[in-house]
Amino acid sequence: MFPNKRVQSLVGRRIHVEMKGEKFVLEGVLASADDYLNLHLSGANEILNGERKRLLGSVILRGNNVVLINPLKE
Amino acid sequence: MFPNKRVQSLVGRRIHVEMKGEKFVLEGVLASADDYLNLHLSGANEILNGERKRLLGSVILRGNNVVLINPLKE
Amino acid sequence: MFPNKRVQSLVGRRIHVEMKGEKFVLEGVLASADDYLNLHLSGANEILNGERKRLLGSVILRGNNVVLINPLKE
Amino acid sequence: MFPNKRVQSLVGRRIHVEMKGEKFVLEGVLASADDYLNLHLSGANEILNGERKRLLGSVILRGNNVVLINPLKE
Amino acid sequence: MFPNKRVQSLVGRRIHVEMKGEKFVLEGVLASADDYLNLHLSGANEILNGERKRLLGSVILRGNNVVLINPLKE
Amino acid sequence: MFPNKRVQSLVGRRIHVEMKGEKFVLEGVLASADDYLNLHLSGANEILNGERKRLLGSVILRGNNVVLINPLKE
Repeated sequence: MFPNKRVQSLVGRRIHVEMKGEKFVLEGVLASADDYLNLHLSGANEILNGERKRLLGSVILRGNNVVLINPLKE
Repeated sequence: MFPNKRVQSLVGRRIHVEMKGEKFVLEGVLASADDYLNLHLSGANEILNGERKRLLGSVILRGNNVVLINPLKE
Repeated sequence: MFPNKRVQSLVGRRIHVEMKGEKFVLEGVLASADDYLNLHLSGANEILNGERKRLLGSVILRGNNVVLINPLKE
Repeated sequence: MFPNKRVQSLVGRRIHVEMKGEKFVLEGVLASADDYLNLHLSGANEILNGERKRLLGSVILRGNNVVLINPLKE
Repeated sequence: MFPNKRVQSLVGRRIHVEMKGEKFVLEGVLASADDYLNLHLSGANEILNGERKRLLGSVILRGNNVVLINPLKE
Repeated sequence: MFPNKRVQSLVGRRIHVEMKGEKFVLEGVLASADDYLNLHLSGANEILNGERKRLLGSVILRGNNVVLINPLKE
């Protein structure tokens, strides 16, 4: 399974996402993902030092600025 | 709904946008968005520490430099 | 009007452009723009703290490194 | 063999990956790779100063943020 | 004339190029340029504070990392 | 000769490559290169202050993170 299909298989699950630029980390439920790894998360939080820092709710993330995606254990 | 269509569904609403590079944050009304997440905002302000810092008015933002898009509550 | 067409509608007008990397800001007359937001400016100046810092004349700017485009009032 | 095919030939082997931004280094088994060098690693660890710092498990890495890929000796 | 054609019109002339990342500046004769603004310079020098710092000779520059291109007066 | 063909003409020769991010410099023999300037180097070393710092061996470099390619004299 190619990496982008692997991401799309995670729709509905909580994921951990690390974005480019000063370690900007988010967690939320993956609502949708396209082949460019543009991501739509619902119930997203910004995470700092492992703690929830900021409630963002519904966010769209630009794929080219995604560094790493990690499914969270449930 | 794919992430770029989700963004296009926000046309006419106020959004919060975080750009790449030193936490450059804007808020404004989404006038248009294409599939690359190039954005046209009207009545845009630059935001610093949650305060309006600079009135920009009509701005175009390059999609690949968009990190995060968040609809604002109205 | 999609964001790139909005930029092309500004040909012949003075624009303010913010580039990626250490807040590199330019102003000049938009001579041409393509769909990738590659820009050709004439009579361009680099701007620092709102002052003209360096006369550049004719410059080409690579679209993916453009963060923000703002038409200037005339 | 083109570079992306060379990467795909490493599927099933442990690789060392250096990502953009503050020397973010990972090691893991390459589960899949596409032509954009999007990578799916299993059993991935973040590496700091040559030591395993953080167990990440299954991760997807965005190709444009990959700087360097190096097969590990086994 | 679109920006990339404008660059191609400069083949054979000395140009000033500013690259992404810590103000990396080069000058040299433009030997070729494609539509992505990948550039081949001959007789290139790295420039620091307006002085020639390092003779590089023949160099290829990746278009997406080009910030600004400026023809030099002759 | 377009810049990417110029790079492909260097296959089999030692090249100097500067990557994006904190002046990450490598030298090695170019084993292959595609049109995106993805590079496969063999016998690669990381270079720091003109000295060989780290033997990397076979490495793949992502084209969009390549800043500059320079053939080495032999």
